[in-house]
Amino acid sequence: MAEGRFYLLVLALSSLGSVCVLFTVYWMWNWHGGFAWDGSTLMFNCHPVLMVAGMVVVYSAASLVYRLPQSWVGPKLPWKVAHASLHLLAFLLTVLGLVAVFRYHNSKHIANLYSLHSWLGITAVFLFACQWLLGFAVFLLPWASLQLRSLLKPVHVFFGASILALAMASVISGINEKLFFSLKNATRPYSSLPGEAVFANGTGMLVVAFGLLVLYLLQASSWKRPEVGVTTEGQPLLRERE
Amino acid sequence: MAEGRFYLLVLALSSLGSVCVLFTVYWMWNWHGGFAWDGSTLMFNCHPVLMVAGMVVVYSAASLVYRLPQSWVGPKLPWKVAHASLHLLAFLLTVLGLVAVFRYHNSKHIANLYSLHSWLGITAVFLFACQWLLGFAVFLLPWASLQLRSLLKPVHVFFGASILALAMASVISGINEKLFFSLKNATRPYSSLPGEAVFANGTGMLVVAFGLLVLYLLQASSWKRPEVGVTTEGQPLLRERE
Repeated sequence: MAEGRFYLLVLALSSLGSVCVLFTVYWMWNWHGGFAWDGSTLMFNCHPVLMVAGMVVVYSAASLVYRLPQSWVGPKLPWKVAHASLHLLAFLLTVLGLVAVFRYHNSKHIANLYSLHSWLGITAVFLFACQWLLGFAVFLLPWASLQLRSLLKPVHVFFGASILALAMASVISGINEKLFFSLKNATRPYSSLPGEAVFANGTGMLVVAFGLLVLYLLQASSWKRPEVGVTTEGQPLLRERE
Repeated sequence: MAEGRFYLLVLALSSLGSVCVLFTVYWMWNWHGGFAWDGSTLMFNCHPVLMVAGMVVVYSAASLVYRLPQSWVGPKLPWKVAHASLHLLAFLLTVLGLVAVFRYHNSKHIANLYSLHSWLGITAVFLFACQWLLGFAVFLLPWASLQLRSLLKPVHVFFGASILALAMASVISGINEKLFFSLKNATRPYSSLPGEAVFANGTGMLVVAFGLLVLYLLQASSWKRPEVGVTTEGQPLLRERE
């Protein structure tokens, strides 16, 4: 019953996450001419898609690995490897997203990293890199003591959710900024809410809804893997499986 | 010891929150001519200040009321009243912040609620209103059963943190948008990072740091009021006090 509800939520989340990515693709395809990898504006178009896919959707999937009921029992190592690998994929997509915008800026002689959107975004990516490296060193490699792991786990969990929140704020400010740029000299400006504005604003709101759902699932204790020897609200669920 | 650390954190948070508000005031004062309540651009200048003060700083203070060690023991009602009153103050500042931008837009014949910043911001304010009314009806008025309260409490706590995260994203996109507007025809554009841009970007990053610190304090179980009959990590602290 509880597992069934979890899988329904996973299905809803996967659909919503896919819609976020597909809508970003459609926005860039329909209103900005599609994609290329050549330093042109078509290369810039890869930036929002790769960021929504990497920093939000795949990042969220990676974060939710330990909420799968199968991961609650048995050895933890395969789930750790899945968690780290999916986060590595999210990070690679994110780095490609950065390359897309930096190469576009450089080829058009536009300054890098001046807007608050970029300051926040680069901070989120930097924290993501630190989080992944620290997570790999402490939780995946075998040398760290249990004491160090239990000390760092709440920090790791907190920064995991925080980086997602920062990514959401970066996406919102990025879509907002892009619309002010692209509808500046349009016959119908941003303030008259043309089709592109409604579509991209809506996509931003969907990204927020997706992120909030993920954060809810992450913090809801009934979906957490029960700690050995600790009474949690999640444990009755585990007992049902035993 | 643990209480001392908490008060040090409260001191750090109060200072950081004050800096966020004062920096927003200074940004509007030094680069945009100060404040008025007359529909002019000086009235718009009240908008960022009231939003940072209301939706971020006072909202955070209101949210953290139950984390004060004094609130962990004894009757809960005075703390509930403080929590609701501070949130009402935050909401009033927020509504004044909305009035400031709507009256400015109307007097200058600028469309309302078209940017993604405004869509997200108004959603955050709407959720805040629902959250306050539901909280008042269920947790402050005496009619609701304990069962209903314990059912709604995790939802209330989750939305409390989520609304702060949405407010942070709104502030970031708002500062970003304002800088693109105000530095559009400047001799030194936003992309050349003039003094105003560095200062306002920095203020945005401080708001993010403040928000993350608040979210950390909110979710850290060692600062939570221990539930009656439930073993939590917070209880040893309570025992020290008994």
